Amino acid sequence: MCETCGCGDPEIIPVDVRTHILSENERRADHNRQHFVESQVLAINLMGSPGSGKTALLEATAASGSAGLRLVAISGDLATERDALRLREAGIEALSITTGSACHLDAKMVHHALHRLPWQEADLLVVENVGNLVCPAVYDLGEALRVVALSVTEGEDKPLKYPVMFQRADLVLLTKCDLLPHLEFEFEALREALERVMPEPRLISISARTGEGLEAWNEWLQRSRNACREPTRRV
Amino acid sequence: MCETCGCGDPEIIPVDVRTHILSENERRADHNRQHFVESQVLAINLMGSPGSGKTALLEATAASGSAGLRLVAISGDLATERDALRLREAGIEALSITTGSACHLDAKMVHHALHRLPWQEADLLVVENVGNLVCPAVYDLGEALRVVALSVTEGEDKPLKYPVMFQRADLVLLTKCDLLPHLEFEFEALREALERVMPEPRLISISARTGEGLEAWNEWLQRSRNACREPTRRV
Repeated sequence: MCETCGCGDPEIIPVDVRTHILSENERRADHNRQHFVESQVLAINLMGSPGSGKTALLEATAASGSAGLRLVAISGDLATERDALRLREAGIEALSITTGSACHLDAKMVHHALHRLPWQEADLLVVENVGNLVCPAVYDLGEALRVVALSVTEGEDKPLKYPVMFQRADLVLLTKCDLLPHLEFEFEALREALERVMPEPRLISISARTGEGLEAWNEWLQRSRNACREPTRRV
Repeated sequence: MCETCGCGDPEIIPVDVRTHILSENERRADHNRQHFVESQVLAINLMGSPGSGKTALLEATAASGSAGLRLVAISGDLATERDALRLREAGIEALSITTGSACHLDAKMVHHALHRLPWQEADLLVVENVGNLVCPAVYDLGEALRVVALSVTEGEDKPLKYPVMFQRADLVLLTKCDLLPHLEFEFEALREALERVMPEPRLISISARTGEGLEAWNEWLQRSRNACREPTRRV
């Protein structure tokens, strides 16, 4: 994240400005979360590097029936609406947030988008964040769960190199698994890295191309959706 | 980039704070640049997504002889020194800048690193930025040239989706080309995307694994290094 996301150079950016930004975002995220809880919609913040396969994952999820869940999506992108277009072509009601030069979505952007999308009719709202393994991790959008897409070509050490993103993830999807036969990928090294960083490591290997792992992912979605409807979660 | 990198929400971050950050960085970048020009060292800012193969590229460059150039490197990483360690194992004198939570390097961090590295004895200084296609693009480090590593698995549309990064690049390296036979990659689509975004599109396909493209890359380095030693560039 950049200086005023909460890090950076105290000589240049006063600490109170950084604190103000993040606390403003928290307030708005709580507001979004209240909406999601009241409507019993499972909101997922889907993050990952550029080209980690977030959109392809959602396309494949829709093609596989989305565990029978009605799915809507919000896609963050700096300059295009390509991801939202792809999702709509895959049959997902989707809206684009064009961030201009902003490297992440924040709770306010998501709140604005909610007013333009019939998300309350859905079971599952996926917010596909801007491709970035750093800044999106510190901006709560009001989601119930955080999923990180990590593609097999990115390497086993990414959880160690981008710890905040993985620390706060509820699930890691190891995408593009169909490419594994062509790589020197050490599964054990990834597992060890996740164990060092994630409090409760959860990993599903998945391929949007071959369908591998889609069943496990759909089951996870279904379980998470059921949990979000339990009265205890609504307090 | 985040709010105070120069974008963001004027309700939260005053415009003068953003302007101040970037102008402070420009001042420091100019100071770095003056050092590089005086010492006739070619400084390259190497950027790209997490896992785009920046470190592997430098390892392969060293193994191929680095066009006969003496190479030193500075590696930006949030939490580890892994990249710098890999580079030192490859025979490159390298220093790590651990940014904590910062998503990019800035001119001040690089300036501090310069005091701990015998860069003046080198021909070529490569600053391997934090893996991120957004924020590093707006932080001048004082470099002479900007190179973006884009791996074939990231997709052809990245220049359109992350235009600032590609707009300001002097060269794009299409990395991991050995994986092309296993992908549905449309070369023409990438070329078109680059032409729409880059003023002067320059692209080299490269594979650190097979060595494809290393000759062209080394030639480019050699030419660029010669150009930076010409007296006209020293004004």
